[in-house]
Amino acid sequence: MTYCVGILLDEGVVLASDSRTNAGIDRVSTFRKMFTFEKPGERFFALLAAGNLSLTQGVVSLLSEWLETENPERDLFAVTSMFGAARVVGAALREVHHVDGGYLQQREVDFTASFILAGQVKGGQLRLFLIYDPGNFIEAIGDTTYFQVGEVKYGKPILDRILEPSTSLSDAAKCALISFDSTMRSNVSVGPPIDLLIYRRGALKKAFETRLEENDAYLQAIREGWGGAIYNAFHDIRHDPGWDY
Amino acid sequence: MTYCVGILLDEGVVLASDSRTNAGIDRVSTFRKMFTFEKPGERFFALLAAGNLSLTQGVVSLLSEWLETENPERDLFAVTSMFGAARVVGAALREVHHVDGGYLQQREVDFTASFILAGQVKGGQLRLFLIYDPGNFIEAIGDTTYFQVGEVKYGKPILDRILEPSTSLSDAAKCALISFDSTMRSNVSVGPPIDLLIYRRGALKKAFETRLEENDAYLQAIREGWGGAIYNAFHDIRHDPGWDY
Repeated sequence: MTYCVGILLDEGVVLASDSRTNAGIDRVSTFRKMFTFEKPGERFFALLAAGNLSLTQGVVSLLSEWLETENPERDLFAVTSMFGAARVVGAALREVHHVDGGYLQQREVDFTASFILAGQVKGGQLRLFLIYDPGNFIEAIGDTTYFQVGEVKYGKPILDRILEPSTSLSDAAKCALISFDSTMRSNVSVGPPIDLLIYRRGALKKAFETRLEENDAYLQAIREGWGGAIYNAFHDIRHDPGWDY
Repeated sequence: MTYCVGILLDEGVVLASDSRTNAGIDRVSTFRKMFTFEKPGERFFALLAAGNLSLTQGVVSLLSEWLETENPERDLFAVTSMFGAARVVGAALREVHHVDGGYLQQREVDFTASFILAGQVKGGQLRLFLIYDPGNFIEAIGDTTYFQVGEVKYGKPILDRILEPSTSLSDAAKCALISFDSTMRSNVSVGPPIDLLIYRRGALKKAFETRLEENDAYLQAIREGWGGAIYNAFHDIRHDPGWDY
């Protein structure tokens, strides 16, 4: 399994991904699921991947091979908008499906993937997309401040209760890590290290990137602090329903 | 969809179920998913149901028809243990599958169900079971304090962080309702009214039962209070990771 989240804020974007992959419960490995493509001062893209590992790696390899081909339907460095960039990712996904899909279908392997794409092209807006397995996509607009892929349910309530467009980058990063903590606590197939990236709107290059290992001090502070904080929050609700039993 | 939770504590059990059913997004109804069978002073059983409504209703109807038949393989009033009661529920589930399953399979309808069974027979322990669609079951023992059926993920983190065997009945009820609040916020196919039942260990009759409508004061206090409490809990974590961005 996998858990990735991308958060779009007034200040910029916060992206986080776990790095655990498993082929059955007895074959667990660590693979990076966050990828960036940037030309500082001109364009910045970050991609988070969930799904079949050979499919997601195939997409990232294709996107890399297509760079500098100057074909705006394939080259992330040649697209003129984020909409164009999302179409390029969709095109790479369709290409890997086209080449490998039939063989995997014969073996009844789950050969699907989904991606979160965040980025900005000079002169355009910072935008966040969710790209589905068939290569189509949706964009975070209006009230939507985040997208998730992979194991999305355990970590969703905290995102819904905290995130707003005006949330600071540091609060959004903290919120993302609490969301990961809830998810990792419930699903062992999501696990550290956690890759975390921060991009400031308009910067056209990444602001900060880090990899949080299991024993990272901040991750530990959240793991220990959140349990106690929830306990206090629970006891802060003092309404007595007046039930007789 | 459905959400039900059963919590086994030193003091007794707390059970809660939503009451929303839907056949597609355009056909939403309210049906009770909590059922009790009791002979005060002798035995008490409570059943929470998730899954295909005609299947779960069929099981409950069969269990009712089988009462007073004095057959301990079918009659909840004739079983001599909770293990026997769980087998009776499994037998009813298998019978409805046997009668209707083939026809539903032809139409490719999802004809599956699962149940939470809690109860106590005089001279025996209070026990909690999770009964699967094939009629087999597991029991909450040792570190396991609760079972969920239906939409289990959104509401799981709060249960994991609060519940222990020593948790009071009133705190467990509050925890269950917070778990419902998180679930209903994320999945519109889970909805009020919420049926809630409390049973005190050894009582051999239900202690308290209520139906919480959407505008119930306690449910509203939790809905409003929990959002604020989580916000405070979030800001209570003050560790600065010292990132530069």
